[in-house]
Amino acid sequence: MLFALKPETRERTLIHAGGRVIGDGYFTVIAGPCSVESREQIDGMAQSVMASGAAILRGGAFKPRTSPYSFQGLQEEGLSLLLETKRKRGLPVITEIMNQTQLPLLEEIDIIQIGARNMQNFDLLKEVGRCKKPVLLKRGLANTIEELLMSAEYILAEGNEQVILCERGIRTFETMTRNTLDLSSIPLLKERTHLPVIVDPSHAAGIRSLVGPLSKAAVAVGADGLMIEVNLDPQHSLSDGDQSLSPEDFDVLMQDIRQRVFFEKKRLG
Amino acid sequence: MLFALKPETRERTLIHAGGRVIGDGYFTVIAGPCSVESREQIDGMAQSVMASGAAILRGGAFKPRTSPYSFQGLQEEGLSLLLETKRKRGLPVITEIMNQTQLPLLEEIDIIQIGARNMQNFDLLKEVGRCKKPVLLKRGLANTIEELLMSAEYILAEGNEQVILCERGIRTFETMTRNTLDLSSIPLLKERTHLPVIVDPSHAAGIRSLVGPLSKAAVAVGADGLMIEVNLDPQHSLSDGDQSLSPEDFDVLMQDIRQRVFFEKKRLG
Amino acid sequence: MLFALKPETRERTLIHAGGRVIGDGYFTVIAGPCSVESREQIDGMAQSVMASGAAILRGGAFKPRTSPYSFQGLQEEGLSLLLETKRKRGLPVITEIMNQTQLPLLEEIDIIQIGARNMQNFDLLKEVGRCKKPVLLKRGLANTIEELLMSAEYILAEGNEQVILCERGIRTFETMTRNTLDLSSIPLLKERTHLPVIVDPSHAAGIRSLVGPLSKAAVAVGADGLMIEVNLDPQHSLSDGDQSLSPEDFDVLMQDIRQRVFFEKKRLG
Amino acid sequence: MLFALKPETRERTLIHAGGRVIGDGYFTVIAGPCSVESREQIDGMAQSVMASGAAILRGGAFKPRTSPYSFQGLQEEGLSLLLETKRKRGLPVITEIMNQTQLPLLEEIDIIQIGARNMQNFDLLKEVGRCKKPVLLKRGLANTIEELLMSAEYILAEGNEQVILCERGIRTFETMTRNTLDLSSIPLLKERTHLPVIVDPSHAAGIRSLVGPLSKAAVAVGADGLMIEVNLDPQHSLSDGDQSLSPEDFDVLMQDIRQRVFFEKKRLG
Repeated sequence: MLFALKPETRERTLIHAGGRVIGDGYFTVIAGPCSVESREQIDGMAQSVMASGAAILRGGAFKPRTSPYSFQGLQEEGLSLLLETKRKRGLPVITEIMNQTQLPLLEEIDIIQIGARNMQNFDLLKEVGRCKKPVLLKRGLANTIEELLMSAEYILAEGNEQVILCERGIRTFETMTRNTLDLSSIPLLKERTHLPVIVDPSHAAGIRSLVGPLSKAAVAVGADGLMIEVNLDPQHSLSDGDQSLSPEDFDVLMQDIRQRVFFEKKRLG
Repeated sequence: MLFALKPETRERTLIHAGGRVIGDGYFTVIAGPCSVESREQIDGMAQSVMASGAAILRGGAFKPRTSPYSFQGLQEEGLSLLLETKRKRGLPVITEIMNQTQLPLLEEIDIIQIGARNMQNFDLLKEVGRCKKPVLLKRGLANTIEELLMSAEYILAEGNEQVILCERGIRTFETMTRNTLDLSSIPLLKERTHLPVIVDPSHAAGIRSLVGPLSKAAVAVGADGLMIEVNLDPQHSLSDGDQSLSPEDFDVLMQDIRQRVFFEKKRLG
Repeated sequence: MLFALKPETRERTLIHAGGRVIGDGYFTVIAGPCSVESREQIDGMAQSVMASGAAILRGGAFKPRTSPYSFQGLQEEGLSLLLETKRKRGLPVITEIMNQTQLPLLEEIDIIQIGARNMQNFDLLKEVGRCKKPVLLKRGLANTIEELLMSAEYILAEGNEQVILCERGIRTFETMTRNTLDLSSIPLLKERTHLPVIVDPSHAAGIRSLVGPLSKAAVAVGADGLMIEVNLDPQHSLSDGDQSLSPEDFDVLMQDIRQRVFFEKKRLG
Repeated sequence: MLFALKPETRERTLIHAGGRVIGDGYFTVIAGPCSVESREQIDGMAQSVMASGAAILRGGAFKPRTSPYSFQGLQEEGLSLLLETKRKRGLPVITEIMNQTQLPLLEEIDIIQIGARNMQNFDLLKEVGRCKKPVLLKRGLANTIEELLMSAEYILAEGNEQVILCERGIRTFETMTRNTLDLSSIPLLKERTHLPVIVDPSHAAGIRSLVGPLSKAAVAVGADGLMIEVNLDPQHSLSDGDQSLSPEDFDVLMQDIRQRVFFEKKRLG
């Protein structure tokens, strides 16, 4: 029997992160910029997404980029700006880890993100499995649902059950969107595992105008939350500007999401 | 300028089929068995899906099957049983055309379906473009959104604007579902075209338990309707039994869908 | 037992077309322009590819095009120019059929081509199965090897065993080539079926510079032939110019192919 | 200008590994078992593949496996058995690295392999870029050719030009093979980069009977070498037995490959 699977008698796992609860009955919105770019930016975003109802702040410090010449994140400096904001605003934070030697740096981070490109970085999975921190595990761009569950198993088998799964789109021949968001994976994962499952519509679509519709679909299909890119100035952000919502658009979307979460008889996490 | 595209000033096209309206402001549910199998089956299904709130009855007479040794549909007999039910119950019907010589047989059919495998059967598209009947055009298993629009253009360019687009899943490496339902295509198509767009979750998923969640997501993402397989006895149906809902399950789903359509400020078509 | 499969005791099928033999022990090169464009063009191409060693002339009269506004082929006129050249030069010809009503027009054509988009046009498959002419069946853009065999079975089950299978690339996420040529399909098909299998590197790659390397690989992997686009003036052809070889480049390639065919202990068909 | 790209004036890069040369004019065969399983196995394999003409011995010590419950390799012990054989037989060896902390352990290894799942493990790429050892970089299962070049760029940008690219199949909808070997990538990569490109037909196909045909195609398409799994007892190997050749079959294949390499006017590396 795999640790990630759900026996009928077992209750769904709740994730506890910085005073927030993620999982069954809750709907959690993680929001923030793709990358931490400056103190003003990350702190401004924290206030803004918090005011709109986001529960957790995202902000990348170490950025996995296809090209070595693209902006690689502010690294340690980005991390310390993110933690500064966390302390100042009391909002739990999530950031991506790129290799196991960074783990000690992430002591104060509330949720560690394993990005799509690292979903099968098995040594990294084992390592985060040995810490006690919540881990958000993104589905790889060309990984099956079965493989996502096996990657989660790497973490659980080491003793860490605080795992959140994240669907973020897979690679197909379609070129109008960056990836194809596979919403079928949500009910399939919910049937098979006791872990919460959230959706990242921003990276999946790569197009701002699709973030709203796909977020609404994610609520309806049974997801436990969303991870949405929001930036003060999407046109001039250093990475992934095309898919970021402005704080105003995010606020409008959150009002809509709030009603849908209520319709589904859940509450915002 | 392509006929299928939507200039800002143009209103969305409404489809008129057998007294029903499909398109902007309406949400239309097409339901019924994959194939017409007998008089009792199709007539029983008509009564049942009608009672649950479906607007249009589906039933295949000519079936495109991967193997020549699979059940190929009841052919002309299936068609005449479908039309008998239509006359008796007053429910509009949709059935699939497989080649242009069948067009005269479909005189009394309310909506002609072009299946996924015929999306780029250009001569067939031209031919249905020359009749005045509503056409439901399914996206091919490996076709882009752009190509779906160009196939619609083949029909519109011949003078027939009564075209409904249908997303039914695309081929990917994922094996747990039959195809991957690409719900991003709905908002993308709605942005670009004035035509209604509906979702077929049954063929996309190929798994009964996913039909409900994906139907709910389709409402939320902005689709104009659903096409759902329902059969009296899914376990013993001659084709696609694994993905058919029982009438009871369909009825439960329709109660839920009705509330969601109301939430979206639309009405059932 | 399926007709398309190869029992151990059965010999491989040889195709007889216009005095040529395709199949076991032979390596057949089909060459010519994507579309018949004029008398001078098709006749010039016939002389040229014949001189370089091609066995069969290709030339499209009815062209399946994604957009209704792209050049659709010279239709009946193209067909009659192709047949004129056939009579004048004595070279067997192949052309694509787009729907079953065109069959009577193709009486004098030596091989009927079913294009990738029609691989699962089952009524068309049945119809060509009822004629006695050789049929070249292309693998669909998103079809499995198993499905290609089942489509061939539609033709064989009607009594026509003169079927040539053609690998022409499948759809993947890779964007640098038009499609991804799946050369693994050649040995897999040769293991399973008694039918000849040829490769179309031109449509697969969509890039002129890849036609040579992929043709060489096709010989090495065990294909029974090639289908190559050649045009007098690739830069100005009305369709698919980017992938056509010039007659000079084709001649150079054929000299190389001839040596490779000899190396494989086959002879040019 | 990217370091991985080939200006017209620049010569192709030759890789120097354990006294062997890989690249332009040479054709190099790397062979051996998927995993090091015992002293007898790896030493027996070394003698056997060497006798058949392989230039480099492969053997995994740290194995990336989808499931945490699959055999993970003999780890440090496997590495020391591999090095023991290297010293005894004088054959250069290649093994896979799974994370940057393993780099010091690989001091005596001749070529470091970055597996498909780590192609975008950017921190690992940077780290191997800072050492001076040859690196074999496998294309990821769902990565484009462009992305493979950008990952190579990560290594070159740190100062290490000793990079070998490896095509090992991509994910598609086809299920008869494990992956779809994209041989078009070889000429495309050779056009664009000065780095050698080799093909791994064993992992691509996942089927023993395809290894021969695909190896021949790889020679013909212009690859600089092959990486082939060979095991003493493929039926009982601890990983990937279905795709391993027996030493006898490998020997037969190498005789054939030798002639093909000669035909291409190259010599075995």
